[in-house]
Amino acid sequence: MHEVMENSAILNLTTPKSVVFYGASDKFGMGSVILTQLKALGFEGDIYLVHPKQTEVMGHRAWPSVSDLPETPDLAVVVLPAGLVGPTLDECGRKGVKSAIVVSGGFKETGPEGAAMEAELREIVRGHGMRMVGPNCLGVLNTHHKFSTNTLPYVGSPGYIGLVSQSGSFVTQMFGPLAQRDLGFSTAFSVGNEADVDLVDCLEYLGECPHTRVIAMYIEGIRRGREFVETARRVSAKKPIVAYYVGGSETGGRAGLSHTGAMAGPDRLYDGIFRQAGVIRAETIEEVFDFCQVLGSLPVPNGNRVVVLTDSGGPGAAAADACGRAGLDLPSLDPGTKERMADVFPVTGSLNNPVDLTFHRVPTAYVDEIPKAILADENADMLLMYLLAPVEVIAEAFRAMGMEHDEATAAAAKMNEDQAEAVSALSEKGKPVLGYTLRSLTDEPIKTMMKKGVIVLPGTRRPARALMALLTCRAYREKASARAGG
Amino acid sequence: MHEVMENSAILNLTTPKSVVFYGASDKFGMGSVILTQLKALGFEGDIYLVHPKQTEVMGHRAWPSVSDLPETPDLAVVVLPAGLVGPTLDECGRKGVKSAIVVSGGFKETGPEGAAMEAELREIVRGHGMRMVGPNCLGVLNTHHKFSTNTLPYVGSPGYIGLVSQSGSFVTQMFGPLAQRDLGFSTAFSVGNEADVDLVDCLEYLGECPHTRVIAMYIEGIRRGREFVETARRVSAKKPIVAYYVGGSETGGRAGLSHTGAMAGPDRLYDGIFRQAGVIRAETIEEVFDFCQVLGSLPVPNGNRVVVLTDSGGPGAAAADACGRAGLDLPSLDPGTKERMADVFPVTGSLNNPVDLTFHRVPTAYVDEIPKAILADENADMLLMYLLAPVEVIAEAFRAMGMEHDEATAAAAKMNEDQAEAVSALSEKGKPVLGYTLRSLTDEPIKTMMKKGVIVLPGTRRPARALMALLTCRAYREKASARAGG
Repeated sequence: MHEVMENSAILNLTTPKSVVFYGASDKFGMGSVILTQLKALGFEGDIYLVHPKQTEVMGHRAWPSVSDLPETPDLAVVVLPAGLVGPTLDECGRKGVKSAIVVSGGFKETGPEGAAMEAELREIVRGHGMRMVGPNCLGVLNTHHKFSTNTLPYVGSPGYIGLVSQSGSFVTQMFGPLAQRDLGFSTAFSVGNEADVDLVDCLEYLGECPHTRVIAMYIEGIRRGREFVETARRVSAKKPIVAYYVGGSETGGRAGLSHTGAMAGPDRLYDGIFRQAGVIRAETIEEVFDFCQVLGSLPVPNGNRVVVLTDSGGPGAAAADACGRAGLDLPSLDPGTKERMADVFPVTGSLNNPVDLTFHRVPTAYVDEIPKAILADENADMLLMYLLAPVEVIAEAFRAMGMEHDEATAAAAKMNEDQAEAVSALSEKGKPVLGYTLRSLTDEPIKTMMKKGVIVLPGTRRPARALMALLTCRAYREKASARAGG
Repeated sequence: MHEVMENSAILNLTTPKSVVFYGASDKFGMGSVILTQLKALGFEGDIYLVHPKQTEVMGHRAWPSVSDLPETPDLAVVVLPAGLVGPTLDECGRKGVKSAIVVSGGFKETGPEGAAMEAELREIVRGHGMRMVGPNCLGVLNTHHKFSTNTLPYVGSPGYIGLVSQSGSFVTQMFGPLAQRDLGFSTAFSVGNEADVDLVDCLEYLGECPHTRVIAMYIEGIRRGREFVETARRVSAKKPIVAYYVGGSETGGRAGLSHTGAMAGPDRLYDGIFRQAGVIRAETIEEVFDFCQVLGSLPVPNGNRVVVLTDSGGPGAAAADACGRAGLDLPSLDPGTKERMADVFPVTGSLNNPVDLTFHRVPTAYVDEIPKAILADENADMLLMYLLAPVEVIAEAFRAMGMEHDEATAAAAKMNEDQAEAVSALSEKGKPVLGYTLRSLTDEPIKTMMKKGVIVLPGTRRPARALMALLTCRAYREKASARAGG
């Protein structure tokens, strides 16, 4: 951990060495599920269960109270009925526990009575100098510390995406979709009602976190506007921040209000806040992770000129259209580049942009000679490549040429892997290379591409908008250096 | 076939009883691939191969010329070098063949010389009173007639989506993605350079085709504008038409020009044409099929008021936001409805819109009692339901309650199926019910939902915009009846 991290006010919340756990029982329930997941993730610290009656719970020793524990745990995890949370936190505070994750709901989100109880919680933790995430949340996941208070199993690998979310679902329910794309979280916060630790605290933390390359935010409403802008501006100068804000439409705002009680502001106001703060705005939850993936994996381009490479006219034209709509330019290639490609270029192909091969005269041309020539062209800032990866058809072609059935299958798979490696190596040129496909990202040939490190996004709109996010990132950085320089 | 269909000028092109095939050989190539796929699809008519030298090709008898055939085939399929196409069509015409699909490229799309050759083709076929699809196309797929001139295997079932496409890729490369969603084509046209049969002819045909419930179009440029509007207007009064137009942006327009030589017009002009013609415009190729699926499977709603049902706050708020942005309203429920639901509603839930259960007190409530109460509410025109389908977690819960491992797996799968059936039955209320998920549509529990007939779209933007497409369809129909009435 960096030195700055060691001073983080909420480090105990993300990297506890010991935990006191409230709410596990031998019956199925939220507490038991969270404890099961925490153990399944392989948490290496000590877990002390507290249970009012039993001396053993789920096969573990249970203690009657935190005051009976042989040491002072770093963190309390509380999954108890709302009415028991205050007294429990108070007891923890008296023992010297410095932080708490309160999963329990039944507070501000239920109305005035709950809000009063929540205010009490805040007073208790502040009185003891504690920091608290929640209530009404799924707490913290730190994949690099094997720590989680989530209800669903974390199925991916430790990753580079930090997340702060005002919805627990947008933490846990992303585990599967991210793993399918070989992406993973570094640390993810479900902040719930933000009675103490809020969006801004988590953003500050992720800004310093060495495992986090890019920060995602799901926002229904920002409480500390000025601090948010100041913090985000500082953080975004060195690490991209992507936000998905749903409070801006009338319908989204109303929904957020009854979900976590956060007050939303009009869309335009938030647009302004995000721009000032250097935050890249995503339109959907899928886009959040599209943007995080390209921002975390691809170099930032020098300009907005994209070359589309395709072997199919329609998908090429559709990508060109989507790029135009996203604000990207499609430059003409330098005559020298055209000459350089001419040797491996089929006569039916088009050397305009999209560069359309129509078919593959030389098997390596599409993934090697041609993209390399494009990337060497001074007119090209980025490359967007269509990936059909028709492995089944290639296998059939090999069979038609006389190969045995299994030999053809293996040869086609090998070709797929070789092509994936070739495309993956292209990004070394210092210009971003992005793949797009009309297939499902869960199709084997596309998965092979992704496993070899090729970034692939589905459709044409999502990849075009992801490339534009790289440019927005660049613009924010330039503004930040100008500020620093001035 | 309907009587009108029997009079269709292009019926021979879609339902030939016999075919003369040019361009198959014993070597791997476009002709051989297409013939292989035609046979693989199970075409039941006669196929006569013509080969200049061999008497047997790919294990079939081959004839030296069409004039030697024992009968006059309905259709010629031509996959020959460009220079041979004219003489071949002329010979077919003299034999009395009434239609042709010319797959061969090398015509207008390559420049002035090719354009001149293409004009000759047109003169030849018109001189013989023939109709021709192509050149530079993948021709026709009629799944209900087991007929195809496509290069990729058709992997789905015969379906209800008719397609006219100025890109062959947007026919063949959709086979996989559509099959994954249990969707299929009825008849799909790749029109290529449209030297004779064009978008308008195909639209006219699909308007009458009894297997086609909804028509999709991929458009790079429309040649016969007036006829397009007249035909589309007539067709859309009874059958929805969805179009994806890529020529509107500067970048898309340039790309289309070098792809099929079609001249694009500005975006706004096309917007106007589509509105006049009753054509629903899609923004991406995925959206084309989203729209087709809901238009072909769901009833048209009476108004734009959608109720979002969720068991997760974040996905609910995100859907509410997406609905608002798409132009839908989120009404409050009638107090009576709230009372009706109260019995099965958990105390932590929210009875606002989104209706958020937060968790399931009664297993059937989410798929039966609650959606039924919502659909009975006069304030609700449509229902948008979040489907997480956490089958793995449910299985784990069953195990925690003492079930054996496999028994729990089976019980959770059974629950998934029962829920799918319950949701599928909901649409009988005459109001559209659409599912949305943040999982991949290829995940087993979601596939189960879809196999039972539940329409599920991924994310929040796509389902919201698909519901809006239903409303656009309704608006167009109202305009059409007003016209008919006046």
